[in-house]
Amino acid sequence: MESARVTLLKFSVLVLVVLLVLFFTRLPIYHPSDKDANFLDCTTYYSPWCTSKNRFQPKPKLYLHTPKPKPSSMTINHDTQVPNHPLDPLTIQEIHKTRSILTSYPPFSSSSSSSSFAIHTIVLEEPDKELVLNWKKGDPLLPRQASVIVLLKGKSHVLIIDLDSGQVINHVTSSSNGYPVMTIEDMSSSTWAPLSDATFNRTIVDRGINLADLACLPISTGWFGKKEENRRLIKVQCYSLQGTANFYMRPIEGLTVLLDMDTKKVVGISDMGRDIPIPKAENTDYRYSKVNKYSKVRLMKPISIEQPKGPSFEIEDGHLVKWVNWEFHLKPDPRAGVIISRAMVRDPDTGELRNVMYKGMTSELFVPYMDPTDAWYFKTYMDAGEYGFGLQAMPLDPLNDCPRNAYYMDGVFPTADGIPYVRSNMICVFERYAGDIGWRHAESPITGMEIREVRPKVTLVVRMAASVANYDYIVDWEFQTDGLIRIKVGLSGILMVKGTPYVNMNQVPEEEKLYGTLLSENVIGVIHDHYVTFYLDMDVDGSNNSFVKVNLVREETSPGESPRRSYLKANRHVAKTEKDAQIKFKLYDPSELHVINPSKLTRIGNPVGYKVVPAGTAASILDPKDPPQMRGAFTNNQVWVTPYNRNEQWAGGLFVYQSHGEDTLAVWSEKNRPIENKDIVLWYTLGFHHVPCQEDFPIMPTVSSSFDLKPVNFFESNPILNIPPNFEKDLPVCRAAASA
Amino acid sequence: MESARVTLLKFSVLVLVVLLVLFFTRLPIYHPSDKDANFLDCTTYYSPWCTSKNRFQPKPKLYLHTPKPKPSSMTINHDTQVPNHPLDPLTIQEIHKTRSILTSYPPFSSSSSSSSFAIHTIVLEEPDKELVLNWKKGDPLLPRQASVIVLLKGKSHVLIIDLDSGQVINHVTSSSNGYPVMTIEDMSSSTWAPLSDATFNRTIVDRGINLADLACLPISTGWFGKKEENRRLIKVQCYSLQGTANFYMRPIEGLTVLLDMDTKKVVGISDMGRDIPIPKAENTDYRYSKVNKYSKVRLMKPISIEQPKGPSFEIEDGHLVKWVNWEFHLKPDPRAGVIISRAMVRDPDTGELRNVMYKGMTSELFVPYMDPTDAWYFKTYMDAGEYGFGLQAMPLDPLNDCPRNAYYMDGVFPTADGIPYVRSNMICVFERYAGDIGWRHAESPITGMEIREVRPKVTLVVRMAASVANYDYIVDWEFQTDGLIRIKVGLSGILMVKGTPYVNMNQVPEEEKLYGTLLSENVIGVIHDHYVTFYLDMDVDGSNNSFVKVNLVREETSPGESPRRSYLKANRHVAKTEKDAQIKFKLYDPSELHVINPSKLTRIGNPVGYKVVPAGTAASILDPKDPPQMRGAFTNNQVWVTPYNRNEQWAGGLFVYQSHGEDTLAVWSEKNRPIENKDIVLWYTLGFHHVPCQEDFPIMPTVSSSFDLKPVNFFESNPILNIPPNFEKDLPVCRAAASA
Repeated sequence: MESARVTLLKFSVLVLVVLLVLFFTRLPIYHPSDKDANFLDCTTYYSPWCTSKNRFQPKPKLYLHTPKPKPSSMTINHDTQVPNHPLDPLTIQEIHKTRSILTSYPPFSSSSSSSSFAIHTIVLEEPDKELVLNWKKGDPLLPRQASVIVLLKGKSHVLIIDLDSGQVINHVTSSSNGYPVMTIEDMSSSTWAPLSDATFNRTIVDRGINLADLACLPISTGWFGKKEENRRLIKVQCYSLQGTANFYMRPIEGLTVLLDMDTKKVVGISDMGRDIPIPKAENTDYRYSKVNKYSKVRLMKPISIEQPKGPSFEIEDGHLVKWVNWEFHLKPDPRAGVIISRAMVRDPDTGELRNVMYKGMTSELFVPYMDPTDAWYFKTYMDAGEYGFGLQAMPLDPLNDCPRNAYYMDGVFPTADGIPYVRSNMICVFERYAGDIGWRHAESPITGMEIREVRPKVTLVVRMAASVANYDYIVDWEFQTDGLIRIKVGLSGILMVKGTPYVNMNQVPEEEKLYGTLLSENVIGVIHDHYVTFYLDMDVDGSNNSFVKVNLVREETSPGESPRRSYLKANRHVAKTEKDAQIKFKLYDPSELHVINPSKLTRIGNPVGYKVVPAGTAASILDPKDPPQMRGAFTNNQVWVTPYNRNEQWAGGLFVYQSHGEDTLAVWSEKNRPIENKDIVLWYTLGFHHVPCQEDFPIMPTVSSSFDLKPVNFFESNPILNIPPNFEKDLPVCRAAASA
Repeated sequence: MESARVTLLKFSVLVLVVLLVLFFTRLPIYHPSDKDANFLDCTTYYSPWCTSKNRFQPKPKLYLHTPKPKPSSMTINHDTQVPNHPLDPLTIQEIHKTRSILTSYPPFSSSSSSSSFAIHTIVLEEPDKELVLNWKKGDPLLPRQASVIVLLKGKSHVLIIDLDSGQVINHVTSSSNGYPVMTIEDMSSSTWAPLSDATFNRTIVDRGINLADLACLPISTGWFGKKEENRRLIKVQCYSLQGTANFYMRPIEGLTVLLDMDTKKVVGISDMGRDIPIPKAENTDYRYSKVNKYSKVRLMKPISIEQPKGPSFEIEDGHLVKWVNWEFHLKPDPRAGVIISRAMVRDPDTGELRNVMYKGMTSELFVPYMDPTDAWYFKTYMDAGEYGFGLQAMPLDPLNDCPRNAYYMDGVFPTADGIPYVRSNMICVFERYAGDIGWRHAESPITGMEIREVRPKVTLVVRMAASVANYDYIVDWEFQTDGLIRIKVGLSGILMVKGTPYVNMNQVPEEEKLYGTLLSENVIGVIHDHYVTFYLDMDVDGSNNSFVKVNLVREETSPGESPRRSYLKANRHVAKTEKDAQIKFKLYDPSELHVINPSKLTRIGNPVGYKVVPAGTAASILDPKDPPQMRGAFTNNQVWVTPYNRNEQWAGGLFVYQSHGEDTLAVWSEKNRPIENKDIVLWYTLGFHHVPCQEDFPIMPTVSSSFDLKPVNFFESNPILNIPPNFEKDLPVCRAAASA
């Protein structure tokens, strides 16, 4: 009993110390405002800790490096914005209205306060595909509905709210094992919750860390069995901010706090790394204002993509992008990030817009780390379904994230209480000229003809950059005038590193037990994979399409047939059912993968189509029965094709958080439904193995990979035969900037 | 005898007809000048048909689309140019001197006229690597020597001529089965030689083709057995120019003339396609002046990469490129195209230039077509060793092939008679800003920190474009400030197509007997592969390097060890001998491939290295015993490593033309020599399978693929931490052009 009293005393003293430190230390970087006394409970609407900091603000923030940003999105007044297209995202007013209907609807109306339930999603419930396809500009707008996911007493409620009638028209309580995408409030409050635990505070202090220097991250627990069932859990790991903004390089290794995410109560603490020093702060800061190590002499003269007459695209009504021969609908989404809809390309022969893709988006990510030890095994992120890929997409930095003349589009999302906020400059759209060649031909000395015809390549890029804590994912949708769509993922940002006692490789007895690379003294970059799975609802000249595997196989000639012994022939296999379309790439068993419209032939009789063209990628080779791989089973193949089903858009399932892998693309595909001459969806997974290297410290140069959707007998002939070359007389006349 | 006299008469009439037609028809495109009466015998030095048309001309030609080209190479006076660096290519004067020494040296002095031997190569004999590595600017230039290959009476003579002493210091007569790279004169004269054959002329006339409309191509025969041995052979296939400059789309199908390349005598004619119509000319021309089908309305406003203060690179003494943290020697080569030498990158910590690559170049290409029939089986091009990849690199088109501010470098090559000529604007060097991101990080709402740091990516590109008859290969060497080198190959130009009676797929009984895709009425695009093999003499911080395969393998955990069942670990295997380094890529058995310096460790003990990072590629799956694949056996693996040997630079062998595959990289590698901690050469093959589609008609939108050489623990940390972001105040101020 004496001992319990001592503990209580110690606890009280510690809490006091914590509170004093927190109130009187001025954190230079993320110190909550002093007047906001209740920053720990996260109930204040405008607390910067509990909601997105840029809760509805009509003006974007001041940019660090651009004294006069004038993004075009400034011209949109979110207060008065109304929808113009059936796929336009919910407006500020529509989100307010949704919240208002919801809070008059039991069981949400009966709740005593808004904090007893949390709104995890309010997005447009897209109208039926058929209706959207038939809708034309000038038609009355289709009925506006909101898809809402609310978490109440541990249960996920999925509602459809009709905004015109003000009615809840559908309400289902999920029986799924998983939970919805975390709210920003879930994540933020989780990072502070451990401070209410004495044991946690004690171990921090025992390790010599000032509580004011603490930065913590909320890490999804995944699911590994009974322990991760029947309640929402999250793990928190912490870092020292002392001496650097790049706290990620200063892990408090081995300390993991398990929280109940709903009660914010500490469920358990694992504290196994007390002997591991915290890596030093030197040379970890990457901010321009703090990099002192090197001279900041500008080694390069200014270089810029310039368009003195302005860009060649226009964005109608805020979301409909029109550029040269392309037209598509573009919107931000809290889960997917960017959604491209109704992508159509103009046929140069007929002048008509032809359907290519009904909807394309990042469906899910899977990022397993390769360290089975206590503080690391659970790091198997699914960034879209757990964290919200769009929620993490921060405002882009004009001139650096996107070139001059970019158009910036804002996102409008709800916080957990249903109040909308604006994520400014979340997506940019720009034209890109990289010095590349669209097509060329010169006659050689062989024929002696005097011909040299070259056409420059200009493309349109849609970009967002999601910062899922340490990592930054840059997602580009690049449209080419020749009909090709390139989908590119760039990885930058900061590694998730592991503390270690080692300062040199000569101290390491078993290299493989590092589970990665020694990057700096006491810092290991742990090996990990990244998989990004795209949902591509292809509608090639109409919804009914087939998937064709064009297999290149070696054919041996018969004796005497030819001086050649072998050649390659192309065998076409039309996939009948889903299992025919589960594709693993094989370099020595090559295939082209076509989505064709079997009912539409070119003039000379080829079915019109698009093919998916992989570039560099990686495949998951984890044990298929490993729980993370079961949840991430959508990465078991590089390509899948499923029949269109509006309930199958999220490859890891609608409720991914702590899911058991019972509702993934892999499960759906096993139904083996017919896919020939049907409305089909193509799924593509882009993969990266990342064995870190010292160049990744303290921040990673961007690594990119991509894949293409490319017309194949879609056009009668080269659709860019008519584009003109560049002429000197048309190009801009530039002078160095005034400041020069 | 009567019949012989009739034949003789017919032949005389035909020859007369041919000559009349040729003299009195004004060919709009490639008509030889009327005063040049002896254009068929190719002995006139300045005949445009027999030598490169831009034989030494100090001024580049007028460009079609650029009224005032001012390439920087204009500042180089080739007449007075002297070498400054041990690796500088031979100058005009040095080539003249080489020719002069050669023609005073038996057996070449005894020849009655210069036409009895042909000079196939005069290039710099590079000094020993050791000497070059020790040479410093300011040292006396190393002795200048020329490597010369001369063909005399069917034998290849390989000579080294010392230019200082004026002596032939080495002279070997090759016993190889192959022949040297064809001269431009070989190719040009072969295209005209069939006209001296009556049977050929008769079948052309019989097919209803005006002889004036004939365009013919010289096609390497390859080697398939006895028939292709002991004499230099070439096959000629012809096309109709009537109505289009794009004669490639109008094949005279099935007609193949076999020529003796030395005597220019017709050895045989295969005439099997008389019933196949010549495809129509409509819609095949691609020239801007001829494209009438579509309006030429400019859909895009001007867009340009602008650098009002000029580029940030300099090119010292014509060949030494210095840009930000890179320095390398750059030269044109008649066989390889572009040679990059002594590539070094500056260490941001020490400020010193560090060696990365001693020499990098395109070593060989292999382009097998997949049609075993008579007129197609032999099409298995090896474009560097047969045609000269550099010889086919045409002048680049400023503003279209390369952006504004590009620097253009000329090639200086000898014709078959040893007289030098200038290939103007053969290589361009430019800085590229494509709107990409070098690195970035934003803090997310999770931590709430106010950080957004983004750095734009600017790179330096070295480009050439080789037009090997129909195809155009764009080769880029792209240098990044983070130490990465990207080697990219773009394919554009025109397909080699096959005539067919079919005008619609509904007429085709057996699709696979097309050996390709019906592209237009009577036109088949035949399936083919492209392989481009690069020679990369890596010298990572010195010449002695090792090749390490870092294999990622699944490790299963022991029961109870972890909630995880599996993770990936990295196993390092240092290759001891060449066979350990014959690498076939496997998606499900992934590896990183490092070239390390085992004697140089980073501060924390990792060996410094570079890794080769593949992107999309293709592997040859032809029968390894098929004669073309034996000759192209260097494509049997994607990666090889050999010990440095100055005689092993051309992956298909020094004498590729009609070679039997006895002197390829695959043969050398089988010696299985030690490669650990040695001066080693990395070989990388980039592959493409090309199943043509209608979009490739009549000219192909560019398709690209690339691979990277990327620092891996080469730098102590991210080497571009110190680069500044873009600031609005530094960027150019542009206005629309005066003509606007």
